[in-house]
Amino acid sequence: MKSEKVNLKDKFELFNEYWTPKIVGELNGQQVKLAKLKGEFVWHDHKEEDEMFLVIKGSLQLEFRDKTITLNEGETYIVPRGVEHNPVAPEEAWVLLFEPETTRHTGKVKDKLTIENPDWI
Amino acid sequence: MKSEKVNLKDKFELFNEYWTPKIVGELNGQQVKLAKLKGEFVWHDHKEEDEMFLVIKGSLQLEFRDKTITLNEGETYIVPRGVEHNPVAPEEAWVLLFEPETTRHTGKVKDKLTIENPDWI
Repeated sequence: MKSEKVNLKDKFELFNEYWTPKIVGELNGQQVKLAKLKGEFVWHDHKEEDEMFLVIKGSLQLEFRDKTITLNEGETYIVPRGVEHNPVAPEEAWVLLFEPETTRHTGKVKDKLTIENPDWI
Repeated sequence: MKSEKVNLKDKFELFNEYWTPKIVGELNGQQVKLAKLKGEFVWHDHKEEDEMFLVIKGSLQLEFRDKTITLNEGETYIVPRGVEHNPVAPEEAWVLLFEPETTRHTGKVKDKLTIENPDWI
């Protein structure tokens, strides 16, 4: 485990790719990841893993089959395991993700956006 | 599991006690807690649990036996299991904690500050 102070905004300044989560910490089998999002992702779920979103900058829409939740800066939402969702960011959004280290961001869906092994940053 | 949008600052406005973590979410056996800190806590460790601090407002000093880490707004630090630490907040600080649901904030130390069963907020 790395044990260092992390300034979230400084870390976000280090990359520009969208939909490419970067790992900034891990604890208890969970990872803290940062992602820049813009546009529409892909419908997916995580069968065994709950996933938390915290918006650091901008705004994120979490589409579900029956509703859409809009998260602004300083707002969180936990997507329970097994629940299909699709993140959409009309403008660039900076998001902190909290999820098990086994989680792939597209779930079992293989998409051109899928990142198999996120990098530490 | 509750599944609702959480606005962190709104939740912080709901309580004023210091050193009294409130639960705002849980996922994968972990809990997300909010705490207002002011003054000095108590030296402790968590034998089996890593603990993440994210400062939402103000400034937090994490004292270790060999160093002190100062976290400002938007900064995180993960205290690895087994490492003694003592949080100190010279002025009021608002902190998000991420840790296993089994974690007691004073570790095995029983102190007048110990909260056995944090409330949801």
